Amino acid sequence: MPPRARRWNGWGFDGEAMAVPSRAAAWLASRAPAGVPLVPVDEAACEVGEARPLPPLPGAVAGDRASRLRHACGQSFPDLVALRTGRPLACPDAVVEPEDAAQVAAVLEAAVRHRIAVIVRGGGTSVVGGVTVPPRPDPVVVLSLARLRGLVDLDRQSLLATFLAGTTGPEVEAALGAAGLRLGHEPQSFELSTVGGWVATRSAGVRSNGVGTIDGLVAGAELATARGAWRLAPQPASAAGPELRRLVLGSEGRLGIITAATLRVRARPEAEHGTVVVLPGWGDGLACCRELVQSGVPHEIMRLSDPTETAFGTTLVELSPLVARASRALFGSRRFAEGCVLLLGWAGTDREIGRARTAARRVWRRHGGLGVGSSGWRRWLRDRFRHPYLRDALISAGWGVDTLETAAPWRELAALHAAVRGALERAAAGRGFEIVLLCHVSHAYRDGASLYFTVFWPLRPGRELADWRELKRAATATLLAGGGTLSHHHGVGTMHAPFLPREIGAPGVAVLRAAVRALDPDGVLNPGVLLVDEPLSRATDHGPRITSGEEA
Amino acid sequence: MPPRARRWNGWGFDGEAMAVPSRAAAWLASRAPAGVPLVPVDEAACEVGEARPLPPLPGAVAGDRASRLRHACGQSFPDLVALRTGRPLACPDAVVEPEDAAQVAAVLEAAVRHRIAVIVRGGGTSVVGGVTVPPRPDPVVVLSLARLRGLVDLDRQSLLATFLAGTTGPEVEAALGAAGLRLGHEPQSFELSTVGGWVATRSAGVRSNGVGTIDGLVAGAELATARGAWRLAPQPASAAGPELRRLVLGSEGRLGIITAATLRVRARPEAEHGTVVVLPGWGDGLACCRELVQSGVPHEIMRLSDPTETAFGTTLVELSPLVARASRALFGSRRFAEGCVLLLGWAGTDREIGRARTAARRVWRRHGGLGVGSSGWRRWLRDRFRHPYLRDALISAGWGVDTLETAAPWRELAALHAAVRGALERAAAGRGFEIVLLCHVSHAYRDGASLYFTVFWPLRPGRELADWRELKRAATATLLAGGGTLSHHHGVGTMHAPFLPREIGAPGVAVLRAAVRALDPDGVLNPGVLLVDEPLSRATDHGPRITSGEEA
Repeated sequence: MPPRARRWNGWGFDGEAMAVPSRAAAWLASRAPAGVPLVPVDEAACEVGEARPLPPLPGAVAGDRASRLRHACGQSFPDLVALRTGRPLACPDAVVEPEDAAQVAAVLEAAVRHRIAVIVRGGGTSVVGGVTVPPRPDPVVVLSLARLRGLVDLDRQSLLATFLAGTTGPEVEAALGAAGLRLGHEPQSFELSTVGGWVATRSAGVRSNGVGTIDGLVAGAELATARGAWRLAPQPASAAGPELRRLVLGSEGRLGIITAATLRVRARPEAEHGTVVVLPGWGDGLACCRELVQSGVPHEIMRLSDPTETAFGTTLVELSPLVARASRALFGSRRFAEGCVLLLGWAGTDREIGRARTAARRVWRRHGGLGVGSSGWRRWLRDRFRHPYLRDALISAGWGVDTLETAAPWRELAALHAAVRGALERAAAGRGFEIVLLCHVSHAYRDGASLYFTVFWPLRPGRELADWRELKRAATATLLAGGGTLSHHHGVGTMHAPFLPREIGAPGVAVLRAAVRALDPDGVLNPGVLLVDEPLSRATDHGPRITSGEEA
Repeated sequence: MPPRARRWNGWGFDGEAMAVPSRAAAWLASRAPAGVPLVPVDEAACEVGEARPLPPLPGAVAGDRASRLRHACGQSFPDLVALRTGRPLACPDAVVEPEDAAQVAAVLEAAVRHRIAVIVRGGGTSVVGGVTVPPRPDPVVVLSLARLRGLVDLDRQSLLATFLAGTTGPEVEAALGAAGLRLGHEPQSFELSTVGGWVATRSAGVRSNGVGTIDGLVAGAELATARGAWRLAPQPASAAGPELRRLVLGSEGRLGIITAATLRVRARPEAEHGTVVVLPGWGDGLACCRELVQSGVPHEIMRLSDPTETAFGTTLVELSPLVARASRALFGSRRFAEGCVLLLGWAGTDREIGRARTAARRVWRRHGGLGVGSSGWRRWLRDRFRHPYLRDALISAGWGVDTLETAAPWRELAALHAAVRGALERAAAGRGFEIVLLCHVSHAYRDGASLYFTVFWPLRPGRELADWRELKRAATATLLAGGGTLSHHHGVGTMHAPFLPREIGAPGVAVLRAAVRALDPDGVLNPGVLLVDEPLSRATDHGPRITSGEEA
């Protein structure tokens, strides 16, 4: 089955979309009036510069205009602005699609020999500039892993499945489903993103409270590096020095090109069930989630929206008149005026689910929660991969949209939430516009949780990027200052790279840079991602091996 | 309360011991006759060379003979041979005990300035040469973290507790117990080993199936490095590049000196219970453990002994005549002639424990298991920290004793067990003696488990180390070839360092070495641990910064 055609200038597949419901537009407009829609230009009107000459490269090489344009960037807000205005910052000089790990290694070898920068691309869904081609004086190719797909080994005894790096979410689950198994890793990009991308960026899926994030799902990996093939055999645990798998996880293509990964899989559950709970306020919701996790009440999905996201959420769905009236009555009551929706999901046998739900009910009731049935849960589960399409529709309706996410210990969470809101509101006010900020917790741990913010602001012609940059800067600085991490699951890319030193400190940067230089001494792989780099041409001035003088 | 006095030439505390029961000695002797006891010399008879002159160092500095001798090595078999024969390989020129993190940093700075090698020491329980002072032409000091003890922050909301690195197991649990909390990390060295040592060596405790290994218990860490202080703030999860905590975990003092760690703690359970199950054979036992873990039956402790360990275990305990008869009848039956003892332990409320035990019983019965009550479990729980004392008693009785441990996917486990036995038996036969080999699984994961081997052999005067070396080499090569890791929880030390490249590959070594050089460019910290190094004097010939020529 050939992959479905991807939209060239926005999220997802051609033909798929999610329109902005009129109630949602009205709700948004009453808080932050729409700006000027950013109407996309035709693909033919895009500026695609002349490709620079390249030496012969192994594998399938495409140098045509459409391939180059469609591999120029990912799905960050600046990426979308570039595509919609037809001014991509840079296009690769060619797109290379190796057929197997040996060809990946051969491309990398040629790139090192000829000093060609290589942007490694899986599903192309990075929202942090992780696959955005940088403007450079030297040639750049995109190495797409689209042809490295499929299950290569299934160890049923150990519940380990080895997939090629370019295998997408649905392909992973189809291959495992045929054996009665599943991975259960479902990031919002599930339909598009790939095993290699998940590992490279430390991705997390909506079922992470049950199955864990990709960090814990990876048992082994294989990489092509500029110093040869690197195989980290699957191991359940080890004390043989630092866990180098964890250095590969989150390496974002800087250490090598992940060609395969061995993942920890599990039996498919007999049943799945979920419910919607409304809690009186954000504090109650956080306390409820914390207790559920810390007291070990089993669950697979947990998603708590803050009052603003809860209110926005009700504008997105078409409710029957009866349900709509009940919803208005509930959120109109004094008790739930600041109500927060909590989605909880379980998987297992009916008996296990029943027990877990009973235990969860005791907890949510202790925090003033009210169970309101499972229809909202089923709708969310059905639609969850469609939500990103809404961003494109909103941009076409005059709103900028971006997401910011972090994680922090429970102790810091409420203050961090308030601080990010304050920082964004101040930043917007300083530039003369208003924002709407939504937030949810969708990954919780015994010691803390993620916060996922969505910000809407009015688009102003010619100032789309400057406004975005100021919001991004204000939010990022605030969450770092408040004990949050730079990203819970979007990664670093080029966008967060300047902020990373604040999080990991000078020793952390020194270690990471040393690791990158050890395996990619010429700096050909994803320059500028993860770590802010000198341009490739400068780095290579020093010869084929990095000298220690640069370490200082 | 001052720490109890440690035995200078063996495991544990002065006054504690575990004698070899006569039944155990007879059982062993019938399989591998005892050799010549290695009778320990007096402390006064030990060779302790002249201390080389040192510059003034910050903190408490001890240069006396006893301090130097008592900090010369850890608890590996070669360490014990050295101490018993009075010929320690090398003694430090001084022992430094900094009072706080600032003094740790000051000592490290002085060491770098004066090119003094620093051996970092927590509880001193390494069995792989991790704290053994190497013979070197240059001065060597031991930096003991014995004075950095105690709880420095407790975040009850996030269940995070920050301890100074030198805090021992009992001190950790006492501080947490006062707050109704526990860590639950109980390696066999629990009474002696320290938070910093656990993190540095990726330790695992007997409750790991319930609470996880130290890898998952560490949320944050602070280190003194030769490039300044490094703080990795506690985070529940992150995608901000590779998880550098995991590079600190298992770094064995090569990246810096861990001064504090923030650990994930939990509420103390209301109750604890355990039981003993006998399974018909090793294969049944492995299958039973695998099903318990993969089907998610809750438990905290799991320990499956192979038939030989099961048989040896019955010789260690004093049973009432009635129980002894029952035991003989059981293991004398055809069904349980190759019987394997499985210990299972649970913690939680009585109700949770009851449910889990019922679920577990269904599983063990499916594998032919027979529950034989909880008295053996209680005895094991009570005595488990005393078992290492037996090693010293056995050496005094003429047997060499060493332990080897690994982990591998379930698919490889049975073959790996057989291969290690074969390799050790062949190695022993080649040198003209016999061995007894015990094995147990004590840490299990959805995708695999640990194997922990104990080997006994007859000591031969003057050949103690050569015989040991050949056994160690044969076993290590075999477990690496069979898909096992070099160590599940003992670490690398100096002993496994030559084997590490086989496990992590040339790219892995390049990355590790680069990380070490980035943070310790002069190579003063724990030289020879983790990675085989050139002597410090050679490394420093090249000047204060390592040049890239050495990377090749």
